[in-house]
Amino acid sequence: MPTQYSLEDLAEATNGEAIGDKSKKIRGVDSFETADDDQITLAGGKKYLNRIADTKAGAIFVPEGFEVPGKNLIRVANPPRAFAKVVALYHPAISPSPGIDPRASLGDGVHTGARAFIGAFATIGSRVTIGDDAIIQNGVFIGDDVVIGDQVLIHPNVTIMNGCRIGNRVTLHPGTVIGSDGYGFVPDDGSYCKVPQIGIVQIDDDVEIGACNAIDRATFGKTWIQRGVKTDNLVHIAHNVVIGEDSLIIAQVGIAGSTAIGHHCILAGQAGISGHLRIGNHVTVGPMTGVGKPISDGNVVSSGTPSMPHRTWLRVQRVIPSLPEMKKKISDLEKKIADLEKKAESR
Amino acid sequence: MPTQYSLEDLAEATNGEAIGDKSKKIRGVDSFETADDDQITLAGGKKYLNRIADTKAGAIFVPEGFEVPGKNLIRVANPPRAFAKVVALYHPAISPSPGIDPRASLGDGVHTGARAFIGAFATIGSRVTIGDDAIIQNGVFIGDDVVIGDQVLIHPNVTIMNGCRIGNRVTLHPGTVIGSDGYGFVPDDGSYCKVPQIGIVQIDDDVEIGACNAIDRATFGKTWIQRGVKTDNLVHIAHNVVIGEDSLIIAQVGIAGSTAIGHHCILAGQAGISGHLRIGNHVTVGPMTGVGKPISDGNVVSSGTPSMPHRTWLRVQRVIPSLPEMKKKISDLEKKIADLEKKAESR
Amino acid sequence: MPTQYSLEDLAEATNGEAIGDKSKKIRGVDSFETADDDQITLAGGKKYLNRIADTKAGAIFVPEGFEVPGKNLIRVANPPRAFAKVVALYHPAISPSPGIDPRASLGDGVHTGARAFIGAFATIGSRVTIGDDAIIQNGVFIGDDVVIGDQVLIHPNVTIMNGCRIGNRVTLHPGTVIGSDGYGFVPDDGSYCKVPQIGIVQIDDDVEIGACNAIDRATFGKTWIQRGVKTDNLVHIAHNVVIGEDSLIIAQVGIAGSTAIGHHCILAGQAGISGHLRIGNHVTVGPMTGVGKPISDGNVVSSGTPSMPHRTWLRVQRVIPSLPEMKKKISDLEKKIADLEKKAESR
Repeated sequence: MPTQYSLEDLAEATNGEAIGDKSKKIRGVDSFETADDDQITLAGGKKYLNRIADTKAGAIFVPEGFEVPGKNLIRVANPPRAFAKVVALYHPAISPSPGIDPRASLGDGVHTGARAFIGAFATIGSRVTIGDDAIIQNGVFIGDDVVIGDQVLIHPNVTIMNGCRIGNRVTLHPGTVIGSDGYGFVPDDGSYCKVPQIGIVQIDDDVEIGACNAIDRATFGKTWIQRGVKTDNLVHIAHNVVIGEDSLIIAQVGIAGSTAIGHHCILAGQAGISGHLRIGNHVTVGPMTGVGKPISDGNVVSSGTPSMPHRTWLRVQRVIPSLPEMKKKISDLEKKIADLEKKAESR
Repeated sequence: MPTQYSLEDLAEATNGEAIGDKSKKIRGVDSFETADDDQITLAGGKKYLNRIADTKAGAIFVPEGFEVPGKNLIRVANPPRAFAKVVALYHPAISPSPGIDPRASLGDGVHTGARAFIGAFATIGSRVTIGDDAIIQNGVFIGDDVVIGDQVLIHPNVTIMNGCRIGNRVTLHPGTVIGSDGYGFVPDDGSYCKVPQIGIVQIDDDVEIGACNAIDRATFGKTWIQRGVKTDNLVHIAHNVVIGEDSLIIAQVGIAGSTAIGHHCILAGQAGISGHLRIGNHVTVGPMTGVGKPISDGNVVSSGTPSMPHRTWLRVQRVIPSLPEMKKKISDLEKKIADLEKKAESR
Repeated sequence: MPTQYSLEDLAEATNGEAIGDKSKKIRGVDSFETADDDQITLAGGKKYLNRIADTKAGAIFVPEGFEVPGKNLIRVANPPRAFAKVVALYHPAISPSPGIDPRASLGDGVHTGARAFIGAFATIGSRVTIGDDAIIQNGVFIGDDVVIGDQVLIHPNVTIMNGCRIGNRVTLHPGTVIGSDGYGFVPDDGSYCKVPQIGIVQIDDDVEIGACNAIDRATFGKTWIQRGVKTDNLVHIAHNVVIGEDSLIIAQVGIAGSTAIGHHCILAGQAGISGHLRIGNHVTVGPMTGVGKPISDGNVVSSGTPSMPHRTWLRVQRVIPSLPEMKKKISDLEKKIADLEKKAESR
């Protein structure tokens, strides 16, 4: 039998107000478009509230004060948050049974917290500390002297290199690499000589790192992902980068060395940030935007050209390099016309 | 002794017409530039057909009706396809011997098809079904309740998270992640609260996924890669994306959440598609193109500026933000000139 | 007790000239901003030399001829290189003890060099040759018939597919894939047919490959990374690409099939290079630059638009597709004004 709660139960769990049939049994959650009569869904914004008649859901989370006749509602201050909570209620995270799989490889002096799980084919280096309730999945590699906090979830095939520090309640998605060497090479007679990268990566509490990220260790000191940061997939973070609290780094973003991103920033997909820049707090960088200069607090920046029919684009491409010349011509024309106007008047 | 076939054998195998020395022994395949007298190659398009005298190959696949004196040819309707078939003839895929390596980790209730291979250090979760002739290479992680079809080839160090469904004849290249959590977070008092991602990834028959891809599970329902799709390396596919049949997704493309790509599309390298868009069928998106709006069937779109000498580019960069002003100035100048022309005539 | 050297020791080790307190004990290295009185740092360029009074370091590497009163200096021809050498002196690479972990999987006919290390859960295919002092970390997969040179360092969870050749002193960072299939598909009745990829990847001496790279094998022949190349993270290199000696490929660059990059090139972050191009030697490609045409030796190219306030950008976006029309209008206006000027003069 699946889990079920009444409308009233769910309202109570989310600190909301149940409207309609309070004893209505709700057996699960689903999206606005696909929820059935025994499921609850979310109408999180205007787009959905305007179409609220369209959902077949048996109940709907809506903002406080919202009314619609004939629907079972739960009114809450923050409907998406309430809905997220209820999704977790019906779909609690399934954790492996605590314990260390005998097929894991452990170095000397490993300290493992209460109820921690270490899976098969995982490698734990020497002098590693692992917190309570941490889950280290199969195939994870953790180098020497790493510290892993409580309730950390490390998905399969993640690599954490020596010396890195991971806070509490951090999630690392599969394939991600933490603490690879920074890209440090100095010219040496036509070739390059490597600069040893002796710093670490520090990831603070409540961070979530997407799949296949590459976060390099610092040359000296630390690459620092601060509390609450969330990264999407395939993100590159270079040595000595700092990302401030609660910033969102969307898929395929790249941040070059020693750049500091403020707190509560949003870097949209495929954006690229040059090295040694200071990006302020509450900054939003649009998708595919290349940032080559510092940005002060609260700014919203974008770059790039719009997508257009390929034939138009071919013609536009040819014009772009001549833009400075065009600007100069316009300026010349303005002068000539001013002259002509003067002459015409003086006649 | 290497495999060898006569020209006639190869013509027969590819449903083609052998021209020249039909008993000519062909010992292998190579590219147009490097093939030797005992190898067969491909002249697949005009570029190569015009230079056909240049190849030293002992035989050449050409289109029907093509003639060139003194060369051994195989005329076929689709030369690249015929050549691909013959390459496979000389270089058959080498499969490991069927069986489950004792160093693999298997959960409860795993059902393995006939002649399947599961390599060392692979993890197979509980209640997993694996089809006939499937190859699960070393170091692969497969979560609980996953379904893997027949003749599936999963290369080393791939991660497939719980509940995902993989069709028949699917190939997944190394380092790829299927079913990582979608990037779902909702604002919560200045921080972010995670939305549990309870959907799956479904990959249909005959799909090939490149190396180091990250394909996220759906929030609800499924992220869906339909029959025949081929992705290149380092591709990001977000939650609830749908990619239609036989579409090609080239390297480093990113597709944001809930976007639906039609069938027979081509998304060229490093293109980025925003979320919640409908991209039609037979659409081509150029390299590095940012798509922020829906595209209807059959369109070809591009964006971006041409590469140019860095000094030119520095000057162009300075002009671009003033484009709206330039446009206005041109419009003003047109009016002024019309006035002057009128005055000049009226004199 | 930490390692310590005198200023004079370090000058000798780097072929430099010690200035100041030659017997000064130096216990470590750190960055210009964070070095203490018992550490040595680097003032590598004008930016730092101008602020040399700011560092609290006990000694500083400076260029030959540089003077500053009251500071302990080591003057050298190439300060960054000398500093890199001294960093390695204080922080020598820590290697695992030689030997083959019993939990590794070895195929038939593996030849392992002197003092090589093969870690737990590593897979070594059949007929693999591994050089002296090579380190194959835990979880690495090496396919059949691979050749690995001396002093190679392969970090955890790297995948090297069959037949690839890795030179001496090569480093591969975690999560990287070498020798995945090239993206080769030919149209076949509305679907695509795979072209077997039977070539290899050859990586020459002194190459370093970043984390989560995907380097595809050639269709025929080899994808070739030549001596001294350094790649950053998340780089995509397609089949049959050649990268010339000592070229730098920065993070998230993508290079499409059969393109040849010359020696001593720099491809900046997120650049994309189309297929079948010849890029000369000593070429620099700016960040995010899309290259669709060949580039001859020594050129520096860029593309892309500047980042700007989002509102400005929205207006700029609307103008860009009308650039060809604007150019034409300017040209028309020039003619009209020339006419008006002629008329005005002739009066």
